[in-house]
Amino acid sequence: MTQLIEPKILKGTRDFLPEDMAKRNLVMDKIKRVFERFGYDTIETPVLNYAEVILGKYGEEGDRLTYAFEDRGGRRIALPYDLTVPFARLFSANYSRLPIPFKRYQIQRVWRAERPQKGRLREFYQCDIDIIGTQNLIAEAEIAKVMFDIFQELGFEKFVIQINSRRLMNGILKFFKIESKAQEIIRVIDKIDKIGQEEVQKELSKLGLEKETIESLINFLTADATNESTLEKLKSFDTAEIEEFLKLCAEFKIPEKYIKFNPSLARGLDYYTGIVYEVKSEEVNLGSLCGGGRYDNLCGLFCKEKFSGVGVAFGFERIMIALEELKKLSDVRLNARVLVTLFNGAKSRDVLSIYTTLLGAGINSEIYLQPDALSKQFKYADKKGIPFVVIQGPEEIEQDAVTVKMMKNGKQKTLPVNQLISYLKGYE
Amino acid sequence: MTQLIEPKILKGTRDFLPEDMAKRNLVMDKIKRVFERFGYDTIETPVLNYAEVILGKYGEEGDRLTYAFEDRGGRRIALPYDLTVPFARLFSANYSRLPIPFKRYQIQRVWRAERPQKGRLREFYQCDIDIIGTQNLIAEAEIAKVMFDIFQELGFEKFVIQINSRRLMNGILKFFKIESKAQEIIRVIDKIDKIGQEEVQKELSKLGLEKETIESLINFLTADATNESTLEKLKSFDTAEIEEFLKLCAEFKIPEKYIKFNPSLARGLDYYTGIVYEVKSEEVNLGSLCGGGRYDNLCGLFCKEKFSGVGVAFGFERIMIALEELKKLSDVRLNARVLVTLFNGAKSRDVLSIYTTLLGAGINSEIYLQPDALSKQFKYADKKGIPFVVIQGPEEIEQDAVTVKMMKNGKQKTLPVNQLISYLKGYE
Repeated sequence: MTQLIEPKILKGTRDFLPEDMAKRNLVMDKIKRVFERFGYDTIETPVLNYAEVILGKYGEEGDRLTYAFEDRGGRRIALPYDLTVPFARLFSANYSRLPIPFKRYQIQRVWRAERPQKGRLREFYQCDIDIIGTQNLIAEAEIAKVMFDIFQELGFEKFVIQINSRRLMNGILKFFKIESKAQEIIRVIDKIDKIGQEEVQKELSKLGLEKETIESLINFLTADATNESTLEKLKSFDTAEIEEFLKLCAEFKIPEKYIKFNPSLARGLDYYTGIVYEVKSEEVNLGSLCGGGRYDNLCGLFCKEKFSGVGVAFGFERIMIALEELKKLSDVRLNARVLVTLFNGAKSRDVLSIYTTLLGAGINSEIYLQPDALSKQFKYADKKGIPFVVIQGPEEIEQDAVTVKMMKNGKQKTLPVNQLISYLKGYE
Repeated sequence: MTQLIEPKILKGTRDFLPEDMAKRNLVMDKIKRVFERFGYDTIETPVLNYAEVILGKYGEEGDRLTYAFEDRGGRRIALPYDLTVPFARLFSANYSRLPIPFKRYQIQRVWRAERPQKGRLREFYQCDIDIIGTQNLIAEAEIAKVMFDIFQELGFEKFVIQINSRRLMNGILKFFKIESKAQEIIRVIDKIDKIGQEEVQKELSKLGLEKETIESLINFLTADATNESTLEKLKSFDTAEIEEFLKLCAEFKIPEKYIKFNPSLARGLDYYTGIVYEVKSEEVNLGSLCGGGRYDNLCGLFCKEKFSGVGVAFGFERIMIALEELKKLSDVRLNARVLVTLFNGAKSRDVLSIYTTLLGAGINSEIYLQPDALSKQFKYADKKGIPFVVIQGPEEIEQDAVTVKMMKNGKQKTLPVNQLISYLKGYE
């Protein structure tokens, strides 16, 4: 006898059973529906890539975390580390025939050679939208509206879209004549929510900043209670971009309380150049659920043309965790609404006729596939959360009737076969 | 300046642009809708697998064609070669908590280290359904009905579900006392459609079969004009399984002409043990579009329990090619139904108010993102196949009106802003 192989999976990867998939698809479909309402179309890029396309784009750490290998033909292959680089590659190869501005959404798996731990997976989904080829701030505002609609329609109640301008932040750094260290300073400031003001002060002082500069800088970079007062505090700087953006957000009918101007928000990536944003829920402690911003040169690695754009990535896996914590996914159902039971004595023709009638009426339904004891068939319906069970035993056949059992309360009703569809549709 | 990287992709992999994805998703959604109508739920298995789970399941050729590599932790990793083995692994690891019979569908990418050529890809989708844990023939008939519904709802007109019984075929081979060579003979007979009767005769003779045996065998294995007459010809064998199956197909209301009993159909895989099927379109010359059958031991490699099941794989990529050839995908649209144009002179507030009204009414729509010349905005709508363009220039603003241009015929209509939604909904 051959030795059995343990049916295990790699840590940091996951099997999704039907209940998991029902939840994930419900959330993905809601997100997609919003994207599509705004006219975003989807694209798909390969999983197998030439390694030179993926490597070298995310720094040393990124290269280390990229799954790369040599195939049998000696080609260096890499799996996507994120969706931005594959999108930039696709866009560079195709922009001459694409409508510009180009809007797309993309939901695919990406891979990281992480040591797996809570919240760190080797294989997970990313979910991105981008608008390429326009510098107009309406693009930024549209994406803010997309974020707002998605978090609202997913059932989040207390969430905030934090926004800032990298241009404004650069202006402030310039004022203090510390723009030469901008990259390092921004990286420190970016951590203010995580490590606190004191720690940030320490790290800035390590970067050689004077105590006075640090205090003044932190004062400027702290968000006040209202966007207005934060803007007032910064009126000596050029805040036109933020003001115009906030005005457009209002015109997009995003309620004011959902947009928070936070002048310390930087977003790690060095390539952001204008508005940046980040969404956090105040109901769960999971950090950023969505983030991104304006960049100037998406495709610089692949083509000479410069394309400015704005894009955000939704943290799909974190959003799933948040929605589970908030119990927004507890009544998700599988597909079948009805189970038709199978009797040994009954002629299968009769139940099959009932079953095909249900299918023809577009009612998602199953026929139980073997004449097991009725109790076993009920158990099956129960396990799958099928709300109705249709029974046609010998007695019902004689009367051309069926009995419908409602699983949640055990109530049964016997009715003529020809009334079954309208009875079930009454519960839809 | 850094050297540009060519934005190329590996042969046998594909970029899917929005129009490609619109077509693929339309077809996938139709297929999923049928699966779900029959109560199939979906699962998902990882892309990264322990190599021992994948390798050794498909013979030497299969191993050679599997993408396998060593990761940084020294683990041997393999990408799925098909969906059957990952499903068997998932089922083996989880069956004690799954409803049995277990029905699932699964649509995912798989990888083959092929030398890419027409119809041979390195990365493509498979689309499988299986029912595990029942031996009842209703399962086979249900899957035949699923196949029938799918090909019909996709718009195929002339297609046939060829069916056979491996049990019956074994009975015939036994009658000729050639069952010891069953595997080799079945493999030859399986090619009868591809290489023709004469070639099959030659190859069988090479296997040591007598001329008379071959002639008699081929007579038995040839399908007559009707299923009835084929059955009649084979009445000295045990055809009960085929007869019962055909009866159940009729009770599932599959019209008779779509089911063709073909006693030479074997389906290559050695693990089929009962009914086998294969779907071909008579309108396109692409070979099998779907196929599968009954097997006795799905999980033998991973667990001691024996699970009989029946399953088929839909050749998604071939089905796409067929539907393209049959011009069934020519009027597929992208998401946006309406483009709201942007004027430089007009206050953005007015167009944004129109745009948010459209969004609020659930009409998929876009606002053009910069105040380009109107001709450029029309071109954008044209390129994306957006059927309606809404214009609010200075004149319209004065009258609180909008002009709607229907792109397919250029007709324009000016109407009060508050009639826009009902006007557009009239065209849905």
